Amino acid sequence: MSEFDLIASYFTWENSLKKSNNNLSNIVKSVGDDAAVLALAPNQQLVTSIDTLVSGVHFPSNTSPYDIGHKALAVNLSDLAAMGSKPEWFTLALTLPEIDHEWLSEFSRGLKKLAEKSGIALVGGDTTRGPLAISIQVMGSVASGKALYRSGAKQGDKIYVTGSLGDGAAGLFSIQNKLSLTDDHAEYCQQRLNRPTPRLNESDFIKDFASACIDISDGLLQDLSHILKQSNLSTSEQTLGAKVDLSQVPLSEALKSINNQLAIEFALTGGDDYELLFTIPETLKAEFLKASKSSEYCFSCIGLITNEKGIIDSNNNLLKTTGFNHFS
Amino acid sequence: MSEFDLIASYFTWENSLKKSNNNLSNIVKSVGDDAAVLALAPNQQLVTSIDTLVSGVHFPSNTSPYDIGHKALAVNLSDLAAMGSKPEWFTLALTLPEIDHEWLSEFSRGLKKLAEKSGIALVGGDTTRGPLAISIQVMGSVASGKALYRSGAKQGDKIYVTGSLGDGAAGLFSIQNKLSLTDDHAEYCQQRLNRPTPRLNESDFIKDFASACIDISDGLLQDLSHILKQSNLSTSEQTLGAKVDLSQVPLSEALKSINNQLAIEFALTGGDDYELLFTIPETLKAEFLKASKSSEYCFSCIGLITNEKGIIDSNNNLLKTTGFNHFS
Repeated sequence: MSEFDLIASYFTWENSLKKSNNNLSNIVKSVGDDAAVLALAPNQQLVTSIDTLVSGVHFPSNTSPYDIGHKALAVNLSDLAAMGSKPEWFTLALTLPEIDHEWLSEFSRGLKKLAEKSGIALVGGDTTRGPLAISIQVMGSVASGKALYRSGAKQGDKIYVTGSLGDGAAGLFSIQNKLSLTDDHAEYCQQRLNRPTPRLNESDFIKDFASACIDISDGLLQDLSHILKQSNLSTSEQTLGAKVDLSQVPLSEALKSINNQLAIEFALTGGDDYELLFTIPETLKAEFLKASKSSEYCFSCIGLITNEKGIIDSNNNLLKTTGFNHFS
Repeated sequence: MSEFDLIASYFTWENSLKKSNNNLSNIVKSVGDDAAVLALAPNQQLVTSIDTLVSGVHFPSNTSPYDIGHKALAVNLSDLAAMGSKPEWFTLALTLPEIDHEWLSEFSRGLKKLAEKSGIALVGGDTTRGPLAISIQVMGSVASGKALYRSGAKQGDKIYVTGSLGDGAAGLFSIQNKLSLTDDHAEYCQQRLNRPTPRLNESDFIKDFASACIDISDGLLQDLSHILKQSNLSTSEQTLGAKVDLSQVPLSEALKSINNQLAIEFALTGGDDYELLFTIPETLKAEFLKASKSSEYCFSCIGLITNEKGIIDSNNNLLKTTGFNHFS
């Protein structure tokens, strides 16, 4: 099977995308030429990010191909969500050790399912032979000047997160037999690790309120420190820090079932959660609370931005911002 | 060294790009957030392509890191050239087995040199640990509706190529000690293999004349067959083929120095040339010739589009379209 046949067999979804994606008119030229040609609507800016998943590094090598397809796209969609942008198009660079039709079929199915659900269209790619790795570049749109950055936090802003934290890390520990969970809880955490939910709807909801946003891929504390660092860089007047109320960090039933100290450690430093971490200015807090109460989304206020360096808990103890580091 | 330090050390070029790149105002947010935010000028469309180079597959594992940096970007820029588009931005997904500062410094230097020369800005990326592989996604702009496709060729169009063909394949054979060349010719061919020139200026020149265009990465005949296939699909009225005058296929001095049959085989099926293959309608031929004569560019007319299936030579012998296939 040639590279061209492979693309035709597994990654030509035009018909299915036509049904689910309203943006198909924005695709001037899709898969099949030297490059894709795409039309951004007037007064929109392009938001783009690339992430690679390497087998054995970003997912255990026995992860199901369906889950790999899902996760490779999900972690990238999560970056679009963190910017307050709407998914439009993506490209796929797939490096495979061999042509395995069963693997490709399942990988393609996982990828396609999430693509359709998120309204993002596959517009190009590259297949190469080598150790299993998947690079996906997502492209989204945002109204000009309206992207959410890491850098907008100010003293007094409330710190929020979506969903629950630490499940991904607990899932990984459970797969590695380092953590004992009931079957139901193990399945839940592993599902959260392998099929994270990019918080696109939540992003769309918070984008008119939030002052800063990031997705939690490296762990709550490390990602919060990115917000503080970028926000510090953008305002020379003050030094920002954060106070986090550990009792307010949202934990799933699965994490509530284990030792609380370990659960909190997973939540603070585990990473691989793909929840949104964002700040709401004091002035918008009431309006945000009111709107969120009548929404279907789950937001937890876990602390506030301070004007003292570092991240502390409610007892003023300094929290160490260690998270997952690919080269540590 | 963390992933963040690595990006800061080797891939933060903002100052140098400010000098060389006029499009910096189009970069709303660069490296350092969850995604880049980019502004496309009004009435422009986005052109995008992704290509992965895997060590040992797309380049010999002893290739210099400077050349790897150059080539990883060059092959992608070549895709933008094939679409008649102008380079704007790129992202880099770099998978490394280890942190090797000398390697990174040289890789970054090769990448940056070509980026500056081409006026393309690095706006984001991802570094991961794993077997050496480089995925680059390039983004370019083109006036709405003006992109060059593979699909525009018509019967009677003249077939042109830029530069000379077969040098990349000869360079690879020379590195592998399968081809004996003088030192000068070996160096020239290996340089063409490792530091291909994306034909961006030629692309800009031909874009108002050409009916179809592709870059030669798989070999002249295979890439010509892509033009024929796509152009056939777009016009149901006729079946297109091509007649190629082998004596007009441009060969470098290095290739003229070897057995002519082997040289022609390199030129027809070698691939890795990154020259442009394009068609000029009969009606624009005189105007194109006149303009090209007063230009600095080297174009060779090698044949014409026919209305008979297949690619034949001047003696009506069928030419087989076999080229490099990553999975053959």
